Amino acid sequence: MNSELSAFFDRARPAIDATLSQLLPSETASPQRIHQAMRYSTLDGGKRIRPSLCIAAFSVYRDDWKPILPVASAVEMIHSYSLIHDDLPAMDDDDLRRGKPSCHKQFDEAIAILAGDALLTLAFEVLARSKDFPADRMLQVMSALGRAAGSCGGMIAGQVLDIEAEVTPANEGQLEAIHRSKTGALIGASVWIGAYLGGAPELELENIGIFCDRIGLAFQVIDDILDATDGSNRDEGKATYPGIHGLEKSRDIAHHLMAEARSALAPFGQRVRLLLEFCDYLEKRTH
Amino acid sequence: MNSELSAFFDRARPAIDATLSQLLPSETASPQRIHQAMRYSTLDGGKRIRPSLCIAAFSVYRDDWKPILPVASAVEMIHSYSLIHDDLPAMDDDDLRRGKPSCHKQFDEAIAILAGDALLTLAFEVLARSKDFPADRMLQVMSALGRAAGSCGGMIAGQVLDIEAEVTPANEGQLEAIHRSKTGALIGASVWIGAYLGGAPELELENIGIFCDRIGLAFQVIDDILDATDGSNRDEGKATYPGIHGLEKSRDIAHHLMAEARSALAPFGQRVRLLLEFCDYLEKRTH
Repeated sequence: MNSELSAFFDRARPAIDATLSQLLPSETASPQRIHQAMRYSTLDGGKRIRPSLCIAAFSVYRDDWKPILPVASAVEMIHSYSLIHDDLPAMDDDDLRRGKPSCHKQFDEAIAILAGDALLTLAFEVLARSKDFPADRMLQVMSALGRAAGSCGGMIAGQVLDIEAEVTPANEGQLEAIHRSKTGALIGASVWIGAYLGGAPELELENIGIFCDRIGLAFQVIDDILDATDGSNRDEGKATYPGIHGLEKSRDIAHHLMAEARSALAPFGQRVRLLLEFCDYLEKRTH
Repeated sequence: MNSELSAFFDRARPAIDATLSQLLPSETASPQRIHQAMRYSTLDGGKRIRPSLCIAAFSVYRDDWKPILPVASAVEMIHSYSLIHDDLPAMDDDDLRRGKPSCHKQFDEAIAILAGDALLTLAFEVLARSKDFPADRMLQVMSALGRAAGSCGGMIAGQVLDIEAEVTPANEGQLEAIHRSKTGALIGASVWIGAYLGGAPELELENIGIFCDRIGLAFQVIDDILDATDGSNRDEGKATYPGIHGLEKSRDIAHHLMAEARSALAPFGQRVRLLLEFCDYLEKRTH
């Protein structure tokens, strides 16, 4: 990893974890079990890619990260809720998450469903309570986040389409739609929200929109490639880019998307070098 | 039912249903199955008590209902999501809801979990998109709703405590806490949000807060009494007022709470007669 990005993560990850820890109800707050489950699944050493992207985009326009930390943490709560619900027996039925028992294994199914619900609810409550940005901007952010997480082209749509594709295999176009909604929308929204709250001018937000679109899709294509090459079988039965396009072409597609993402930010010059380095990092990352 | 309240419901229910129908994605929007599930469980002829209370409180201060309808509908979406998740096999495992197959029976468990998630997400998105009230007020509303629906004293807390009470029976104080959080918080928030967005002055909001607290708790006590007397067995194994206090004392408690609710609004005079009639209606309602 480039040393500037590495230094960024060294600062960002502890700041995100500390903010999450502070925003999540304590393990001793009643009812304890659900708060233990929320903390267990959220404070689990995740890579914090979404909140880091949000902060990196914010830092293009503003030096002081403090106001964006609760917003970035709310995005991570939504990501965390989605993993808890995706792991449930009725969904992907995964017993493990990052090498530990998944939430419903560590607690039980009822608690896992409710912990996910509570993280989604808390994410919006945290955003609604934020006093660091103008209220109309926060409403815009919540609207964008609702769309990115929702059932019309957002994360929930992606999960439904993904489940359906296990029965009726997806074609190329459908696979792209699944990936854009399942992962791309929230990844993209993370960047957009950071830039928007940082105060990016309208014209720059257009380019950032293209950047968001491309890295969002590229992120999931790369995830597919990693799953196909690390022998995890995590994607068994799932619609994936390597499954439809083969590994080599999938790598080309990911690389092409990242090149388009970089091009969209070319007019910004040095200000966006952290976001560009993020592209390198995402392209070269391992699981 | 009093004729003025009856006339109110005749106007309010169709307006709420029409607004919900318009705000929910259409059955033909992709992915169709989740949108069919969201509509199936929300547009199901429910009594619309929460959104009606919200509109009734709003109408104390404003004549034109139109701006409050999306807000009231968002509250109903949250109620609807909670019923879908409560009915799941891992939770209350109910096959029927209002005489029809519950969501996971009509569709499947994965769709039911995701339809609930999507309704919760959409509720906040609808509120975030509303342009009819000042942005800072909408943030206050979303914060209040998040708290009422959440895991710290809100609906999710109530559901967790309720499940725990099936194993370790609740005492009087715990039962009250369960009922306040499981049902009272969202019922109370419905009234508070209506009055707040209607423009209730600070001093009146204090009395309305007391009203909210009392009818919220009373609502669930009455629900318990109805469950105990209509032979539905819906509450089997659950902590209930009749189970702890007996039927007669439960009726006294409900009546006393409703009397306190009415007293809190006594200084308002004729302006609040609809809310007072609502108390009569809730006290005399059947399932």
